[in-house]
Amino acid sequence: MAVYTHLSAEELGDLISHYDVGELVSAKGIAEGVSNSNWLIETTRDRYILTMYESRTELSDLPFFLGLLDMLAGKGCPVPATIHDREGASYRMIGDKAVALIEFLPGVSIDRPDTGQARSVGKALAEMHIAAASYERRFNTMGLAAWQQLTDDCGSEALATIDPSLPDIMYDALSDFAGSWPGGLPYGVIHADLFPDNVLMLGDEVSGLIDFYFACTDFFAYDLAVTHAAWCFEDEGRSFRPDISSALIEGYESVRPMSDAEHEELPVLARGAAMRFISTRAYDWLHTPADALVTRKDPMDFVRRLQFYEEHGERIFARS
Amino acid sequence: MAVYTHLSAEELGDLISHYDVGELVSAKGIAEGVSNSNWLIETTRDRYILTMYESRTELSDLPFFLGLLDMLAGKGCPVPATIHDREGASYRMIGDKAVALIEFLPGVSIDRPDTGQARSVGKALAEMHIAAASYERRFNTMGLAAWQQLTDDCGSEALATIDPSLPDIMYDALSDFAGSWPGGLPYGVIHADLFPDNVLMLGDEVSGLIDFYFACTDFFAYDLAVTHAAWCFEDEGRSFRPDISSALIEGYESVRPMSDAEHEELPVLARGAAMRFISTRAYDWLHTPADALVTRKDPMDFVRRLQFYEEHGERIFARS
Repeated sequence: MAVYTHLSAEELGDLISHYDVGELVSAKGIAEGVSNSNWLIETTRDRYILTMYESRTELSDLPFFLGLLDMLAGKGCPVPATIHDREGASYRMIGDKAVALIEFLPGVSIDRPDTGQARSVGKALAEMHIAAASYERRFNTMGLAAWQQLTDDCGSEALATIDPSLPDIMYDALSDFAGSWPGGLPYGVIHADLFPDNVLMLGDEVSGLIDFYFACTDFFAYDLAVTHAAWCFEDEGRSFRPDISSALIEGYESVRPMSDAEHEELPVLARGAAMRFISTRAYDWLHTPADALVTRKDPMDFVRRLQFYEEHGERIFARS
Repeated sequence: MAVYTHLSAEELGDLISHYDVGELVSAKGIAEGVSNSNWLIETTRDRYILTMYESRTELSDLPFFLGLLDMLAGKGCPVPATIHDREGASYRMIGDKAVALIEFLPGVSIDRPDTGQARSVGKALAEMHIAAASYERRFNTMGLAAWQQLTDDCGSEALATIDPSLPDIMYDALSDFAGSWPGGLPYGVIHADLFPDNVLMLGDEVSGLIDFYFACTDFFAYDLAVTHAAWCFEDEGRSFRPDISSALIEGYESVRPMSDAEHEELPVLARGAAMRFISTRAYDWLHTPADALVTRKDPMDFVRRLQFYEEHGERIFARS
């Protein structure tokens, strides 16, 4: 949850006047996203989300992210389009911070999905992969090299303060990936962070995929593995939900069937997905000031997923 | 800003089903209020604010607060009415916490009011005083006795860690009030916390008075004094805005002219209003954990107002 920056009614009114969206009626800072500040804006015309990009989003990446939203929305994906200002710009500056006005989408984020919802999420992810296939490229700054770097930046001693077993677990996983990480799988634009709070649903239907600020070019099957790690466990990673796993993968393949190679690599991709969140959470755990507005997330939730995938990955991802 | 408690989509959907408001379409935790958690709820019918009462609001006070909203809204004041559930209850429990669904009102909170806005706020406050005159009573738990208690609970030694001059300033003010606090002024239900962030405006018009959770029975002129202290200064209490002061009081008296006695007591009431926020802010400053989600507010902002009122109160509140 986060509203890092105060915007006065006067600043908001001035901003809105640069868009053809009517007059400002209401603005509420909302507790959504962890890296940026967000407001739910109502005008005489419609509702919108205003996002202010804080330090974690690179200004030079914004055209990629916002253009991706427009492209996906234009192709009918449930993704909020960017509202462009009267000069056609997709973002504006307030002081030294960039802001963008995007569509408001209905729906609520689900804490504990049922199989119908998991199937819909799988379908929506595959549809997004197909729709964005021809979009431009962006390097995955949260890929294998980043996990290694984040782990080294933390250091074994500090990692052991989180859990004595953590340094060995992380370095063992990194060694594993060095030998086993696949190449040559189908790739394109992936969301790379499709947790339940980045999906809006109305009943069993996906009404919104949001927060594309980790989107990048990588294997499609890795994106499915990230989504799998994010959706198929409960009780902080202690409990695997096989029905949700099956429904998610079935939903995905009902739109974009995977090749045998993709299927065979799902276990290592899922271990990588777990490692991606172990490494960033461990780094944030050690580097987030105690008085920060953001609640630190426990890296051990994803250690449990990593260990589950190490033990059961071949079985649960086997073609039925 | 605050969303202290997580509510799942499932819990929200279940809650909404107890009201005749349509189906849940969207729910966003919003950064509003400091003591309670709030969500902006959209249903197929309309928008609402859902408030969850956290520890600072007494359950036994809720009928007073929520009934007051209904009474004021019924009399045409710009106050959100409470939505009652299908059984007619004004609040429900989720676990051990009470929640209420109230109307969503348009408008934005103003950081730096102009005179037209200050006049409207004065009028709206006076209209509220008249509309609620016959409502039931509630003791002001944040009155003179509370300031004394909070000051004693902090203790001189701790207060001096905030500012070396603070203990003397607070105890001198308390001695002053012991001899000079008025009695016998017109009284009734007051808002008691009408800061700019508790007023929603559309242009120069007040579209909403919100957050009545300090409402109580006390002198009407004290409520105007609180509003004066909250609206007529900028630069953290360093700079008085005489035009806003005049406009606020004129606006108030255009609806409810004050007696000579009320006018004469405005200087001491304004010093009391400053003391009310010095004492609670000092207490919170010393008792808020460093890792709390709430930003601590500096009591010195209101020490400056107190000193301004001590020096200039007779002059600025003199009948023109």
